[in-house]
Amino acid sequence: MLERITSAKNPTVKGLRALNQRKGRVSQGRFLVEGEVLIREALGCGLTIREALAGDAHAAFAEELAARGARAFTVPGELLATVCDTVTPQGVCASFDLPAPLPLNDTPALIVALDGVQDPGNLGTIWRTADAAGFGALLLGAGCADPLSPKVQRAAMGSGFRVPFMLADDLPQALSALRARGYRVVVSDLRGEDFYRRPDPGERFILVIGNEARGISEATRAQADMRLKLPMRGGAESLNAAVAAGILMYGLTEHL
Amino acid sequence: MLERITSAKNPTVKGLRALNQRKGRVSQGRFLVEGEVLIREALGCGLTIREALAGDAHAAFAEELAARGARAFTVPGELLATVCDTVTPQGVCASFDLPAPLPLNDTPALIVALDGVQDPGNLGTIWRTADAAGFGALLLGAGCADPLSPKVQRAAMGSGFRVPFMLADDLPQALSALRARGYRVVVSDLRGEDFYRRPDPGERFILVIGNEARGISEATRAQADMRLKLPMRGGAESLNAAVAAGILMYGLTEHL
Repeated sequence: MLERITSAKNPTVKGLRALNQRKGRVSQGRFLVEGEVLIREALGCGLTIREALAGDAHAAFAEELAARGARAFTVPGELLATVCDTVTPQGVCASFDLPAPLPLNDTPALIVALDGVQDPGNLGTIWRTADAAGFGALLLGAGCADPLSPKVQRAAMGSGFRVPFMLADDLPQALSALRARGYRVVVSDLRGEDFYRRPDPGERFILVIGNEARGISEATRAQADMRLKLPMRGGAESLNAAVAAGILMYGLTEHL
Repeated sequence: MLERITSAKNPTVKGLRALNQRKGRVSQGRFLVEGEVLIREALGCGLTIREALAGDAHAAFAEELAARGARAFTVPGELLATVCDTVTPQGVCASFDLPAPLPLNDTPALIVALDGVQDPGNLGTIWRTADAAGFGALLLGAGCADPLSPKVQRAAMGSGFRVPFMLADDLPQALSALRARGYRVVVSDLRGEDFYRRPDPGERFILVIGNEARGISEATRAQADMRLKLPMRGGAESLNAAVAAGILMYGLTEHL
């Protein structure tokens, strides 16, 4: 039988609630995962669980989490809603240790880099697509949404636990270092060449996606081996960033 | 100098507010467009403007709309926020006559059909991508989000005014009728064949995208000339519906 928390001021509840903010995640070294499906994905990917809160309908699942090492509690639904970021709380949430970012010198053949992708839904959706298309890592430059925010992880649907991420405060410099190690840099750019007449990017490359409104920065563009643009055949001037990223990722790996 | 409305109970304000709901759109025969960019797109596409409300910062634009035939008013920002669906109101909104759906017997060569795509953001994003990729119409089956809701039109970013839509209460029957007129039906299906080993769908085809959770219905699947699946190379089991639609639309039109 799990202990029950009923006060919104309980320190465990307050600690978990703080994980909705980047500051809380950094200071505690943990992040929040919502819902049974995502929590199972995180456990399956080897992440370390710390604390869990469950509504009564998920008490049995919370017992299971306790057996796997979590400090687990049941709580009233209203209290859970004050912790979870979702509009419709998923009945259970848990904190996990922050995954360590991948070091920049240990990188897979195919990487997606984001140059200031700000929308959490776009970032998470790109993460999910990168996983599906077979990319091995995400490289996040300055100005991106926080990869460990609940909104990003929800859109990533578990791919955020499977595909590691790397952080680069100076993305152009990181791209330059990767080029020196044999990567080609392929940039999505509305001022670029026709994607369907592209040269072969080879076996090791980085696809760079720009900010939703401003696109690629000048300093990032300067590191491009090729700048490519999807044809705009009708009246639309551009695509949603996550859709463009998906078309480019699958297009570039079609031969795999 | 435009007339000013200050009461939330003003009949014009109440009428415009009702356009956020399908019922209001059907009974008034109008829909709501938010923000200067989208309103200009709608005018440019030949839609008929009826009424406009603008905050003080957009009074000059409202004068311009009045000159183009709108009954235009200025309103306090708080009042505008009670009409507009957006979290951050865009300073101006206007009602337009509902566009007439395209008749099912007058159809372009490339069509995207949606079999119960429920999320307004997904539907609007698919609309935008269809425009960019060169598809000529959207065919909406039962269970789809309302194409004229503000959320859908916002995600479509003007493509909702450029690419016409058709409504089919019975999508399988509509697909059957289109097949009889020479279209091939290409269905996105997680149980389908590898997209990258597909046969040529020819010059006239309909790409069908299924519901976010359930995918394609059995009755729709029965109308498929080919069922195709994007390869899932990593751990993700599926893609976001709008991302999958984008990869398929661009993949199928690569030769254009």
